Amino acid sequence: SSMEPHPTKFMEFPYVSTPHKNLMVHLVSTVETRLASHLLPSTLPPDVQYYQNDTATNHASLHIRSGLPSSPIDFILGSWLHCQLPTGGALNITSFSSYLNPSTDAPNFLLELIQSSPTSLVLILDLPPRKDLVLHPDYLKTFYEDTKLDTPRQKLQKLAEVKPYFSSSLYIRSVVSPTAILVRVEAVEGGLSLEEIIENHIGPVAREVLGIWLEQCALGKREVGENEKAELKKRDDLVKRKTIEIDLGSNFPRLFGPDAADRVLGAIREAYRV
Amino acid sequence: SSMEPHPTKFMEFPYVSTPHKNLMVHLVSTVETRLASHLLPSTLPPDVQYYQNDTATNHASLHIRSGLPSSPIDFILGSWLHCQLPTGGALNITSFSSYLNPSTDAPNFLLELIQSSPTSLVLILDLPPRKDLVLHPDYLKTFYEDTKLDTPRQKLQKLAEVKPYFSSSLYIRSVVSPTAILVRVEAVEGGLSLEEIIENHIGPVAREVLGIWLEQCALGKREVGENEKAELKKRDDLVKRKTIEIDLGSNFPRLFGPDAADRVLGAIREAYRV
Repeated sequence: SSMEPHPTKFMEFPYVSTPHKNLMVHLVSTVETRLASHLLPSTLPPDVQYYQNDTATNHASLHIRSGLPSSPIDFILGSWLHCQLPTGGALNITSFSSYLNPSTDAPNFLLELIQSSPTSLVLILDLPPRKDLVLHPDYLKTFYEDTKLDTPRQKLQKLAEVKPYFSSSLYIRSVVSPTAILVRVEAVEGGLSLEEIIENHIGPVAREVLGIWLEQCALGKREVGENEKAELKKRDDLVKRKTIEIDLGSNFPRLFGPDAADRVLGAIREAYRV
Repeated sequence: SSMEPHPTKFMEFPYVSTPHKNLMVHLVSTVETRLASHLLPSTLPPDVQYYQNDTATNHASLHIRSGLPSSPIDFILGSWLHCQLPTGGALNITSFSSYLNPSTDAPNFLLELIQSSPTSLVLILDLPPRKDLVLHPDYLKTFYEDTKLDTPRQKLQKLAEVKPYFSSSLYIRSVVSPTAILVRVEAVEGGLSLEEIIENHIGPVAREVLGIWLEQCALGKREVGENEKAELKKRDDLVKRKTIEIDLGSNFPRLFGPDAADRVLGAIREAYRV
């Protein structure tokens, strides 16, 4: 009934369709199971794990687990966000990313599903590189060519409902890899529904990319010298700071009020260590 | 009559449509006029300025002018290529690029038109960055955000005939900027002709991007320290070597025979100094 409390746990993904929820739960569970021995328990306070604005039109959840000091995992970060739009619709964003630390130079994992209407969504799915690919063609070969990471992108691109998506942020466009899946999906009358596209097309592709990340990046051994570690840390820190600035800095206070925004950004900065 | 010799001069662009030729001549002339005091005369031997294969099915022209030692211009390079296809059609490629030297870190200029049928072509138009944009957000702001370089890309993208193009080379995808115009243009029955699209849409956009390159990049003053010069040279040289390998290395001997390929690649390597 309407008297029940809102579902407030991260893994409940309460505002999205069942296939969308199932996909997010599958990806997060896969990483938490495969990397169980690498991850510390979450230490987020309850009012960061779930928060809402004063008028209860906007709801969100954050999930962060840091890696053990001995692990190449820096942290994993998941979130969902539900905002009522002035037009009567709602904006639903779910995201899951995994960052590695400078003990390895392997790419990170990034997935974001941005749904602003019942029939359309934007998918961002990538293993963002941690080095300048132009200066490091061997790195491009190892993580993007030899892994055939462009194949899942090509598969998804074949669907009539799928069009390339260009982020309005040139920095975000620069951060992603040349095999990044940046697409807008528009379901049309009489065609596949958004739920079918998520279940039968986006899901398999996301699981495939996550599998490559787990085996070749998170758990692949890389030799990194001390100088290179310092360079990686500099670039990683810059990406983290810019990502906060672009993704959260301006929107969060507006959507959730200054107090919740301060708490949540504080928790993210602590995990990011920037 | 058929007894006349083939037009063999670079600026004649003998195998492409009038609007296509006019656009190429305009771009090359604009740069050679604006940068006249920076450029040395061409020193290419005649059999590199124009060459063909033994059976005279494939024809090509190369044009290179190096910059004066005191100039920030490394060199400008133009080319056209016409190859009869086994299918009965022809492949026509025209290109023009301008490279700066390490006395500045400003972006280069790159234009390529690849036409493999009378109704379709691929356009590559960009100011490729000479630094890792992720590590240098100030550089991204100066050359790509403040110059509004994404606007011409957005304009062209609005045409129904224009679709994003993904190079099969992940290295080429990595070399270009986040505002790169990488599109396939397909003229359709009853719509705009390819010639109209070149004249009224590609032309204005190419002139606009070239104007930004001339004023903000080629002729803009930049301070570059000695360490940074060495880094720029390392990255520039790698891009040149990889570009030769990807673009020319495997195709040229097949298309023009080993002797012409050796001559032409030799001339390009001399201009590139790699």
